Amino acid sequence: METKTSSDLPPGFRFHPTDEELITFYLKNQAKSKPCPVSIIPEVDIYKFDPWQLPDKAEFGEKEWYFFSPRDRKYPNGVRPNRATVSGYWKATGTDKAIYSGSKYVGVKKALVFYKGKPPKGLKTDWIMHEYRLNDSRKQITKQNGSMRLDDWVLCRIYKKKNSGGRGDHVEKLQLQEIPCQYTDSGKLQVNENGFLNQQVYMNPMLYQFQ
Amino acid sequence: METKTSSDLPPGFRFHPTDEELITFYLKNQAKSKPCPVSIIPEVDIYKFDPWQLPDKAEFGEKEWYFFSPRDRKYPNGVRPNRATVSGYWKATGTDKAIYSGSKYVGVKKALVFYKGKPPKGLKTDWIMHEYRLNDSRKQITKQNGSMRLDDWVLCRIYKKKNSGGRGDHVEKLQLQEIPCQYTDSGKLQVNENGFLNQQVYMNPMLYQFQ
Repeated sequence: METKTSSDLPPGFRFHPTDEELITFYLKNQAKSKPCPVSIIPEVDIYKFDPWQLPDKAEFGEKEWYFFSPRDRKYPNGVRPNRATVSGYWKATGTDKAIYSGSKYVGVKKALVFYKGKPPKGLKTDWIMHEYRLNDSRKQITKQNGSMRLDDWVLCRIYKKKNSGGRGDHVEKLQLQEIPCQYTDSGKLQVNENGFLNQQVYMNPMLYQFQ
Repeated sequence: METKTSSDLPPGFRFHPTDEELITFYLKNQAKSKPCPVSIIPEVDIYKFDPWQLPDKAEFGEKEWYFFSPRDRKYPNGVRPNRATVSGYWKATGTDKAIYSGSKYVGVKKALVFYKGKPPKGLKTDWIMHEYRLNDSRKQITKQNGSMRLDDWVLCRIYKKKNSGGRGDHVEKLQLQEIPCQYTDSGKLQVNENGFLNQQVYMNPMLYQFQ
């Protein structure tokens, strides 16, 4: 999963997009069949796989993996998406977030947890999905009569929740300080690796830099 | 503070180094007077300024700012650093972290909080420092007799703590889901912006990519 990471980007540089960036620069382009700024997010129907199979389907990513996925309807006339996979299902959790670009409402972010087995007796796992969809994703689709397709594309971030905190940093506590107190540290900010930049994107900053 | 951010890097790409990367790729090079992979961390004696003055001293950064700083001794023969600034002082907090590169102990990360005024009656602020020093930083220095210098260089990340969570993302809760539950989201992972890559570093991935 770490292929190309160190050779493609200087140390410390990663793909750490904001919700707004994922929607306005990546999902919107994908929905309009326009090229993304960087071709790093593959098209994968994630519901055809179990979450632990998905990392191998991604071109990059160390602890988080991004995919453009279609969503099908659960029932022909309903708007509920089909969340079933090979050996389990994704279940929405928490509260959806409206994502804004400035003051403009551009999309929604939903958190889901993967359960093994069949509802309602599924077994909760640590696999998490953040699903981003455009605010107008369904308008485009309802025109297609008889289709089981619910959205054109949604953008999904898949990761396995770590209960241990310090997401993968090799750190060890030294009892040198009083006043125990926790702060966000780069270990927690430090989640995913990245690679695979295309020439167009790479050249712009260089021209900018050396003009 | 956001100058060059969008024009230098593709959307979603940022400088989000791990503790290990900051020490092994940036602080170690600085201590050995070798060029860093990317010239983005300026040399600033941060104790000559108050934290809110530092963002302007940085070449990049939106919500976090990085500096290489020297540290002076508080007392001629002591190893305690002088943490006083213009109108306050930095006070260590929490537990230091030993940073490893693989199994090798390479440095220490310390968290500090800025207090306005004079100890012990200083007023706690939201300004936080993560100070990285090399495991052998002091060995190099103790040879210099009579010097008030404690370390050659430490690497500091300065930021203002947000109590509001969602670090700057434009988000709004929609009550569409049951089972309230919190997960780390990209909003929280999303802290600092970056720019300013040098040609050498930029070219490598392109050559790699297009060979």
